[in-house]
Amino acid sequence: MRVLGVDPGLTRCGLGVVDGQPGRASMVAVGVVRTPSDGDPGERLVYLEQELLAWIERFEPEVIAIERVFADVNVASVMTTAHATAIALLLAAKKGIPVAFHTPTEVKAAVTGDGRAGKAQVTAMVTRILKLTERPRPADAADALALAICHTWRGSTQARYTAAAATHGGRR
Amino acid sequence: MRVLGVDPGLTRCGLGVVDGQPGRASMVAVGVVRTPSDGDPGERLVYLEQELLAWIERFEPEVIAIERVFADVNVASVMTTAHATAIALLLAAKKGIPVAFHTPTEVKAAVTGDGRAGKAQVTAMVTRILKLTERPRPADAADALALAICHTWRGSTQARYTAAAATHGGRR
Repeated sequence: MRVLGVDPGLTRCGLGVVDGQPGRASMVAVGVVRTPSDGDPGERLVYLEQELLAWIERFEPEVIAIERVFADVNVASVMTTAHATAIALLLAAKKGIPVAFHTPTEVKAAVTGDGRAGKAQVTAMVTRILKLTERPRPADAADALALAICHTWRGSTQARYTAAAATHGGRR
Repeated sequence: MRVLGVDPGLTRCGLGVVDGQPGRASMVAVGVVRTPSDGDPGERLVYLEQELLAWIERFEPEVIAIERVFADVNVASVMTTAHATAIALLLAAKKGIPVAFHTPTEVKAAVTGDGRAGKAQVTAMVTRILKLTERPRPADAADALALAICHTWRGSTQARYTAAAATHGGRR
């Protein structure tokens, strides 16, 4: 399964593509889309959309895994993160690619075994799991890879849950 | 000046087009875009984008005025509101239409003279200002019109502030 992990943001949006299955994962691509924090908000979204579309068309992910963001001390930051998430959702729907959300705790637990792991620990484990020769930088890039790994490892379990919920008439 | 007011939301996104200048305003169109709350998040954004694009192409607003949303007790609601806002920002940038944000307090103050006015009072004043024969419903539609009125009445002042800030090298 090929997964595009998206650590949503406007100043830095981390992107990581991973081929994997539970217990195994290899990196296909990693990068960060940056837009100027003093740029026009709409122009920043247009640029992010263009870059994200280019990644989707180039790497053809089967799933897009996005970090689920909750409230933050910084309201403005939550808003721009939500705007970036909307662009990813919009493109995924247009391209017919399923989207999965994972919380930071789920991602940390998946790659380090500890839902409260720090950024350095996550980056170190991502480097080890993907057998990279150097640590992915910045942290947003590592986070995007961690998200993709998390999804490849949790995906099948989630799919079973979803199927079970659907069978029992539960809401997704 | 023709303004498209957008009261952003996914379940209901209020849209109102007003032609106006300070002290005078007339309604061109009003409506609400609805998407099912249990629908796929990406599909909802795609639908909203299509509808919003149709409004922009039909009514050709010179400015898009969007309600600036702050934190709310309901985090999920803030997120979907932010997603809808992102779609409006994206389209406006693609169409080269300037965007202005106004807070609920600014909008209420502009149309009722009281920044803490209730929904009923805002709707009543919108009805009166635009000389409508009946009150716009639902509240999201009235809010979108109020936003557009607010912008036509405050716009010139804001433009002067922006010009002054630019002259003095201030950041916008």
